[in-house]
Parts: sequence; structure tokens; C-alpha cells
Amino acid sequence: ELYNYLENMHAADIAEVLENLEVEDQTQVFGLLSDEKATDVLEQINSEDFSSLIKALTYEKKVTLLDLMSQDDIVDKLIELPESRQKEIIAFLDYEDAEDVKQLLVYEEDTAGGIMTTDFVSIKKDYSIYYAIETLRAIAPDAETIYYVYVTDDLDRLVGVISLRQLIISPPNRAVDTVMNENLITVNVNDDQEEVAKIVTKYGLLAVPVVDDSNVMLGIITVDDILDVIEEEATEDIFRFAGTNEDEIYENDDTLFERVRNSVTSRLPWLIITIFGGLLSATVLTSFQSTISANATLALFMPLLAGMGGNVGTQSSTITVRNIATHAIEGVGIFKTLIHEISVGIFVGIVCSLLVAVAAYFMHAEYHIAIIVGIAMWANMTTASAIGTIVPLVFKKIGVDPAVASAPFITTTIDLTGLTIYFSLATFMMANLPK
Amino acid sequence: ELYNYLENMHAADIAEVLENLEVEDQTQVFGLLSDEKATDVLEQINSEDFSSLIKALTYEKKVTLLDLMSQDDIVDKLIELPESRQKEIIAFLDYEDAEDVKQLLVYEEDTAGGIMTTDFVSIKKDYSIYYAIETLRAIAPDAETIYYVYVTDDLDRLVGVISLRQLIISPPNRAVDTVMNENLITVNVNDDQEEVAKIVTKYGLLAVPVVDDSNVMLGIITVDDILDVIEEEATEDIFRFAGTNEDEIYENDDTLFERVRNSVTSRLPWLIITIFGGLLSATVLTSFQSTISANATLALFMPLLAGMGGNVGTQSSTITVRNIATHAIEGVGIFKTLIHEISVGIFVGIVCSLLVAVAAYFMHAEYHIAIIVGIAMWANMTTASAIGTIVPLVFKKIGVDPAVASAPFITTTIDLTGLTIYFSLATFMMANLPK
Ligand SMILES: [Mg+2]
Ligand SMILES: [Mg+2]
Ligand SMILES: [Mg+2]
Ligand SMILES: [Mg+2]
Ligand SMILES: [Mg+2]
Ligand SMILES: [Mg+2]
Ligand SMILES: [Mg+2]
Ligand SMILES: [Mg+2]
Ligand SMILES: [Mg+2]
Ligand SMILES: [Mg+2]
Ligand SMILES: [Mg+2]
Ligand SMILES: [Mg+2]
Ligand SMILES: [Mg+2]
Repeated sequence: ELYNYLENMHAADIAEVLENLEVEDQTQVFGLLSDEKATDVLEQINSEDFSSLIKALTYEKKVTLLDLMSQDDIVDKLIELPESRQKEIIAFLDYEDAEDVKQLLVYEEDTAGGIMTTDFVSIKKDYSIYYAIETLRAIAPDAETIYYVYVTDDLDRLVGVISLRQLIISPPNRAVDTVMNENLITVNVNDDQEEVAKIVTKYGLLAVPVVDDSNVMLGIITVDDILDVIEEEATEDIFRFAGTNEDEIYENDDTLFERVRNSVTSRLPWLIITIFGGLLSATVLTSFQSTISANATLALFMPLLAGMGGNVGTQSSTITVRNIATHAIEGVGIFKTLIHEISVGIFVGIVCSLLVAVAAYFMHAEYHIAIIVGIAMWANMTTASAIGTIVPLVFKKIGVDPAVASAPFITTTIDLTGLTIYFSLATFMMANLPK
Repeated sequence: ELYNYLENMHAADIAEVLENLEVEDQTQVFGLLSDEKATDVLEQINSEDFSSLIKALTYEKKVTLLDLMSQDDIVDKLIELPESRQKEIIAFLDYEDAEDVKQLLVYEEDTAGGIMTTDFVSIKKDYSIYYAIETLRAIAPDAETIYYVYVTDDLDRLVGVISLRQLIISPPNRAVDTVMNENLITVNVNDDQEEVAKIVTKYGLLAVPVVDDSNVMLGIITVDDILDVIEEEATEDIFRFAGTNEDEIYENDDTLFERVRNSVTSRLPWLIITIFGGLLSATVLTSFQSTISANATLALFMPLLAGMGGNVGTQSSTITVRNIATHAIEGVGIFKTLIHEISVGIFVGIVCSLLVAVAAYFMHAEYHIAIIVGIAMWANMTTASAIGTIVPLVFKKIGVDPAVASAPFITTTIDLTGLTIYFSLATFMMANLPK
């Protein structure tokens, strides 16, 4: 009965359960699965458990299950295993699959080549529709998707595509190249995975063919893998906003020590930039020391000013970076974006600086403190929104990832300009305002 | 020749071009398209241009193109138009489509109902495979996807699914319910779109059926719409991190004034929280005013301390929030996450506080300033990483969106604790350290 229960469960759920079991129980439960279910589970499970499950199988079972697995999923598992273990597992593949997998392992992980599979269906352009469907029936069990059938010429160059839908509704005696769609959307094997995701999303594709520079078809990327790419890229950007990077995304099999080490090395560079910014701030403040000594109340509002500038700047920069990433900015234009962000800075600046000026007056009953804090606050917030918008746009222009215009970088820059504005104004006002 | 050129362009690209043309040129170019291409373009273009393109068409053309469009795309356009315009456009739909579209307009935009289409293929469970394929051929031109065929009972309740793949390889004389897959993954019409995206991603589906509480099938959601949902949800979270919300995501037809107003109202609440935090900081500092007056050098390092605390806290909180959103945290556990983040805080704290202490000594040649700044920095960074991790976890626990544990909230909290640590320590040390 356990067998029936497991067969009715979805592979993704079985994989989740297995990942939480000890190796012995894992192999025992896994042994109960049919070959098809076992293959699906292997495709879904993490690399480490994949490796240990395979290890426990008989030779015959190893060969059977690995042959049933889709190549891109084998590659996804292997890429995270040590090279020696990669070779051991590849040894159980048939010659053709082994060559394909070795080839796929060479591509950079974040490129089209790194996420594609070579298990696609292709036919020659002079086939009849009838023969094309027959070919499809024969290849179908091994192919990643049969919803698109790719048409190639004698040199394996991609010349067209037919959807399964079109095949079914076309007269069986027509030649494939009279029915196929010649307006193909393709990606190059070296394209970044993010570009591939943009194309699949824009054109609403279920799969996109991958070609080399001579238009020879190398593989396909299916939409299920694109879903993962989109999530992965969003995580990457979010981590960069925070002043760290994707190296510290949890890998299932890392120890606590390895994780802490990854996090420390990812985060330290940004923190050290912040230190230099902070020391620069300290130096700037040193030159205003006489102003501060003359009126210590000014120092009380430093955290408020820095905090507000930092927040306004982070709001503008984060939104600008995201609008660049989602291409939303292209519809609006760079100039209008800048006008928009600065206008927002001016308006929120007016509201906040009035509030703060009133509060400062009631806290200290000194109207010139209230005036200095209010004006500095407004100038600081307006400048902060301009900096927060301009920095990522400039980064984009000069080819740096705008996402590194992240919290640490922006807040440090704004701290410096904000303090300079505040104390310059204070020095000037205190020299010129009537007491 | 322009006709051929346009027919060879992808609809998504034509839509992009049209969006940048004036209304007159737009209608002229649009008039050159075949019905199929024109329909695809209408599905891709923004709501405002959709409305104006439809307006310029003859009655016959309106009816033809709207009938060819997929319902969920019609609904997507209508939802952003004024109600009067919605009614005008619905009037050109045939009775059945009009009823479906009106029904779809009722569902919340961010739920399964709001993104589903009712153009799916369903057959009754006692059909033969042969008759099922015939039905498919008849319905195919109108259906959103034919890759899954849903099987219902006499009360329209969903009982199984057959993929097109299975239909093609099954013997034509078998009954549908002997071949169909009964282990269905479904979503409820009221489920949040984010949950739907998680399910489609987890199980690698091309489409998921939407049912009501009695398991009656209402529609399907296709993977192309899920791609948009994933991007939309990531944008939402990123905007919340920055202390604003998705209301200020660019809508194509908003004026600059409307955009600025949306941004101001989205961002102000967070800034006002920051003001209260900053005023609290000012109050806390007031109680340390004698310490500051006695040693004004202490004030110079306030921006550095606040900046470092803010950055470390933002790193921890952002990563925790993202790991909650991607469910990565479930594999690791809450306790281990906390240990990890605090360990990272301790280590980066040691490195940074040593650097800062040395720099402070060289800048001011006062060893007790160096000691106070160093120790305060270390304590501040460790506390900041703990706060950054605990706050989102607590928010999650009590049912608040963890993403609101965003930069403004975290940095304000950490500013307060950091300043308190710094000046308490300074007050204590200056009373007890030998000069
Ligand atoms: Mg094989
Ligand atoms: Mg896969
Ligand atoms: Mg990857
Ligand atoms: Mg791969
Ligand atoms: Mg795949
Ligand atoms: Mg990226
Ligand atoms: Mg990337
Ligand atoms: Mg219709
Ligand atoms: Mg939506
Ligand atoms: Mg909708
Ligand atoms: Mg759709
Ligand atoms: Mg969300
Ligand atoms: Mg949402």
C-alpha cells in the first residue's frame, strides 16, 4: 500500500520528504518507487542526495534511471558535485548521453548553454507531416518537450519550427517546410540566462532554441527552467541591494562554518567601503568642530538627518535599479525618471522638514536650530533623491551592474553630502542669524 | 511589402512599435495586419492603446478581433480602463464570451481568479480517446492551451487530466478515464497569485486548473502568465524593502503629476516613522549631552557607527526576508538562521571594529577614543545583525509581511540601540579609564 501511496504523490513532494530523511531510510523509500517516479524524483532532489541515492543503486538500476533522466537535470546535479564524483556518474551513461553531458558541463552556469538541454525533437525540412509525426512518436519518450518540433537543414542549421498544434491540424501529405514557421526566435549559446528569461517572457514561449554563431541548433531551454532563472536573478539583485552577493545563497549541503565564511566574505567589502565613508564623515566633521562645540544641540539631530537622507536615497535608488531591471524605465525615459524622483524628493522633503522643524523648536525652543535643521533636512532629502537616481543610471551607462548602487554605497555618499550641507548651513546661519 | 514585413515581425515587437506611435499612424499600421497578427498585437499592447485601436475599427472588425482574443487578455486590458469603456467594449463580444469576461472582471486582480482564463479544453470522462482528439481539433483554435485536456464529470467537477502527449500515444478506442491522470494539482479561485506561482514552479506545470470550493472547474492559468506574476511579486518585495510599495510601479498612462503623487503617498509613511525614530535618537542623545560636551570627538564617529549598524542590519534583514520568500529558510530552520546571522555579525564586527579603532587612534591619537569606538562598533554590529534577523522572523510569525521589516524600519531601530550602546559605554569608560 505504501507503493500505491508513493506513486500517487507528486515527485516534487517525494523529493522534499526524502531530503529530510537519513541516507538509509532514503534508499529504502526510494527503492519502492517505479522507474518513472524514481527518475522524476532524481530530477527534483538536491545534488548531494542525488549523489547518495545513485550510489546505493545496483549497476542496472543506475543505468536505467540515468538514461531516463533529462540531460539538463543531470548536468544541474553534477555541476555542484566534485569532479571525481562527476566522472563516476557519467560512466553510467550511454556513449551519446555521456558526450552530451560532458559538453553541457563546459558551458558557464549562468548562460544559455548552462541551462539548456540537448533532448529536443528535430526533423529535416523535406519530411512529410505524416513522417514528422511518426518521428515524434519515436523520440517523444526521450525528449524534454514535444510541443515544438524544430526543423533543420542538411548542415543541422535551424530553419524553422512547427508546434505540435500545427502538426496535428495540418494535412499529413504536406512537406514540413511548407507549413513551418520561419520567423524563429532563438538565443545564442553564450547569452546570459537573464537575457534568455527576458525573451521567453516577452514572446510567451514554452521553449526557445539555442544556436551557435553559425545558427547550428545545439539545444533548447524550457519554460520550467526559466521560472527558476527569474527567481534566481531577482534574488541576486536583492542581495546586491543589501550590499552582499549571491555567493551566500543557501546551498543545501554547506556546513554552518562554510555558510558563515561565505557570508562574511560577501559582506565585508561593502562594510569596508562604509568604513572609509564613515572616516571621511569624521574628517569632514572635524573641520566643523568649532561650530559643534559652540552649539552642541546641533549634534543631536545628526542621526535624524543621516537617517532621512539614507532612506530617501535608498527609496530612489532601489526603485531606479528595479525599473532598469524590469525595463520599465525604457517606457518612461531617463530624463522623466530623474524629474520624477527629484520632484518626489522635493515634496516629501517639504512635508518632513516642516514636521522636523516644528519638533526641533518644541524640543529646544531655539528658533534658529529649528530653521537650520528644517532647511538642511529639505536640501538633504532633495539631494539624496537626486543621488539615488543618478548613481544607478550612471552605473548602467558605464556598464556596471546598477544593483551595486546598493544601500551601502548610496547611504555612505548621502551621509557625506548631508553632513556637509547641515554644518555648512549651520556655520553660515549662526554667523548671520540674529540670536 | 510593408504587409509582408509586418507579418514576419513578432506581435510583441509590433506592439512595442505601435505604443510609440501617434494614434493616427497607429491605426494605419494596425490596419495592415492580418486578423491573426492583429489579435496577437492587441493581446500584447497596453490598455490605453488597446482601447484606442479598438475604437478606430469597423463594427465587423471589432467583433472579429475581440472574438479571436483570449479572454484573460481582454480582462487584463479592461481592468485598467474606466467602467464605461469596459461596457462599450464588452458589447462587441458574443453572449458567451461577454458573460465569461464580466465574471472574470469580478475576481481580485492578484488572485487565481484574476489571472485565469476560461478558454480551456475539457472533455467528459466517458469519451473515447478518438472522440477526445476530435473534440480537441474543434475547440483548439479558441483554447488558450491544448497541451492539457481536463476531464470532468456530469456536474463539471474536475476528475482528471490528460496531456496532449498522452492522448497522441494512447490507443484511440480506450475510454478517457482509463488513461487520465487522477492525481491533479489544482488551485482555488481565491488563492493568492503568489501561491499559484509557487505551485506552478514547484511542479513544473505548463498550466494549472482553477476550481471552486466544490471542485467545479472554472478556468486555467498558463505558465506565460506565471512568468509575469513572479516578476511582479519580486518587484513588490523589492519596493517594500526600500520603504515604499507597489502602488508606485509605473503605469503606462499615468501623468507625471499622478506618478509623483503615488510615489509621495507610498513613501511618506516610512519617512514619518524614520522622523519619530530620529527624534527619539535626539532625545536619547540629550541625556548624554554632558558626555558629548566633555569630549566632542565622540560626536565625530556617530555617522560611522550609525552607518555600519544600518548596513549590517540591512544585510541580515534583506537576506532573511528573501530566504523567507523563496522558502530557502525552511530547509535550514529558524534557529540555525539566527545562529548564522549572529555569527556573521560577530566576525565582520571584529574585523571592522579593529580597523576603525586603529583609524580612530591615528586620527586623534587618543587611545581611549579608539577603545570606546572599537568596542561600541563591535557591539553595535552584533546587535544589528540580531535585530535584522529577528524582526522579519517575528513579523512572519505574527502574520505581517516580513518585507516591511525594510530598510527604514530596521535602520531606525538600529540607530537607537547603536547610539545608546555607544554613549552608555563612553560615559562609563570615561568615568573609569585612566586618562
Ligand atoms: Mg537518455
Ligand atoms: Mg527541468
Ligand atoms: Mg544557475
Ligand atoms: Mg545547467
Ligand atoms: Mg528542462
Ligand atoms: Mg541580474
Ligand atoms: Mg545573473
Ligand atoms: Mg471567443
Ligand atoms: Mg496583476
Ligand atoms: Mg487578469
Ligand atoms: Mg494567458
Ligand atoms: Mg509577495
Ligand atoms: Mg502580492
